Amino acid sequence: MADAVAAVDIGGTKTTVALVDASETIVDRATASTPGRIGGAAIVDLVAALTTSLVERHGAALRGVGVATAGVVDTSTGTIVSATDTLRGWVGMPLGAAVRAALGEHLEGSAPITVQNDVDAHALGEYLCGAGRGASSLLTVAVGTGVGGGLIVEGRPWRGAHHVAGEIAHMPVPGAEHLRCPCGRMGHLEAIGGGLGLLRHYRWLGGDPAVVDTRAVAARAADDLTAGRAIADAAGAVGRALAGAATLLDPEVIVVTGGVADIGPVWWHPMEAAFRATVIDALAGVPVHPGGLGADAPLRGAAASAWADVAVAA
Amino acid sequence: MADAVAAVDIGGTKTTVALVDASETIVDRATASTPGRIGGAAIVDLVAALTTSLVERHGAALRGVGVATAGVVDTSTGTIVSATDTLRGWVGMPLGAAVRAALGEHLEGSAPITVQNDVDAHALGEYLCGAGRGASSLLTVAVGTGVGGGLIVEGRPWRGAHHVAGEIAHMPVPGAEHLRCPCGRMGHLEAIGGGLGLLRHYRWLGGDPAVVDTRAVAARAADDLTAGRAIADAAGAVGRALAGAATLLDPEVIVVTGGVADIGPVWWHPMEAAFRATVIDALAGVPVHPGGLGADAPLRGAAASAWADVAVAA
Repeated sequence: MADAVAAVDIGGTKTTVALVDASETIVDRATASTPGRIGGAAIVDLVAALTTSLVERHGAALRGVGVATAGVVDTSTGTIVSATDTLRGWVGMPLGAAVRAALGEHLEGSAPITVQNDVDAHALGEYLCGAGRGASSLLTVAVGTGVGGGLIVEGRPWRGAHHVAGEIAHMPVPGAEHLRCPCGRMGHLEAIGGGLGLLRHYRWLGGDPAVVDTRAVAARAADDLTAGRAIADAAGAVGRALAGAATLLDPEVIVVTGGVADIGPVWWHPMEAAFRATVIDALAGVPVHPGGLGADAPLRGAAASAWADVAVAA
Repeated sequence: MADAVAAVDIGGTKTTVALVDASETIVDRATASTPGRIGGAAIVDLVAALTTSLVERHGAALRGVGVATAGVVDTSTGTIVSATDTLRGWVGMPLGAAVRAALGEHLEGSAPITVQNDVDAHALGEYLCGAGRGASSLLTVAVGTGVGGGLIVEGRPWRGAHHVAGEIAHMPVPGAEHLRCPCGRMGHLEAIGGGLGLLRHYRWLGGDPAVVDTRAVAARAADDLTAGRAIADAAGAVGRALAGAATLLDPEVIVVTGGVADIGPVWWHPMEAAFRATVIDALAGVPVHPGGLGADAPLRGAAASAWADVAVAA
């Protein structure tokens, strides 16, 4: 093959690199566990190794790199502004420059490296290629272990004045008052709406202490009334927060993705019912879609950003 | 004087027209009660009469008109999409065309008429000339009888896919669960945060039934513990909603205006304390400013929009 960009998705658990051609098709991909406990340099080395193996396998000319990563990113410099402890040594990492250095001769000196938050890339992917295609504005919320969010306004990602726009996780939401958010405050959406929050709420309700993960709560929903209620409460909090966000932002489409959203109708129905019961009449018709790209969304967004920067640099 | 635009602010209680010159200075203004109960045509006639009197008094050449009005506006057509019952016959009013017809020969056929929501105009005024000057993004919230909000994103008003962006009034907020919002739903910010909501909350708390308006609640704050608590609770709900909105939008500056915000420190302190206690660390430094233009903010925003459209039309 000829020209390609590398799309990189660095998550808390695994890191994926995809080779994406000029028609924005994923040609090949490589995945490995993220060495988050070892530290930032090891993650950069892994990205370089996966990218190099793909480039060599396909004889590709690497025109640019688009990185989507966990953590808050200063997109103007490609530096990590803040991150959770899952990725050791990630805060302050000049990720764009570090990836360039690690790739060495495999990347031309003038080829752009674009770094962005993974949920922003996720939103961009769904906007360009997935459930938000054709919309002028989009709110994407990823409900996994935590809760992430990304905004598209007038066709472009809106990252805010401090790179945190879209952080619906930290909206105060009725029904979460009794739970502490990972940020340290009480009552934020993530405290009940994320997978970890759902599990904590299940325990708070008096659920079986032998249940140790969100997947197990979901599996018991049909037989364990407490599990069913925990899921409905957590989903309802997400729906109410989405209604508040919709009222404030007025997006054309809302896309909800992530492992918790994938639990199925037992989660989706109370989420959507709470949204419809809370949102004003003028927004009653706003569609709330499940994601259309699954786990590929951040890769698609990262690749689109990389190709856009290649076009600007040319 | 030579060239001017008319800036119009149509509120539920009064209507003001200002003559604004090319340096965006308010040269003169005229105000009258809004004939909201009589109907839309009477409001349009009043706007035309006030404008004509100002134009004739100053011998101005009217280059355009900028209208800021209560209600949801389709800015592409200048039509009112929805409004409360305060303004009879306002919904569906083709306001731009109606004002043009009513002004007749006082306005050239090619002169633009710009219509927008009054809170959006308010946000634009504070952004261009007031407490948000120099910021790249702004959330303005007006806390009066109700609660309004407007957004500036990357230097431009963001009105959303259904003309309702910025409607922070209808965010669900912890602490409002027991009160019904004017939109009909329980627990929205306006149900407790607006002036009417504050009064209802005061009564719900067992306050003196002889107190019939928000101003009287504010006047009793020093002597009546229930009044003090009602104000603190209402202000706290606004602060928590602002924290949620800040987290989602990440604006550079937040501006809070309106008659309830003008109650003073007994309202402002608990509002800001709730904001700081709720918002994530990354946004701890976001400034929350009182408005810098007072009641002139919508006029300044409407005039700026009118002059911008004059420049485009030229």
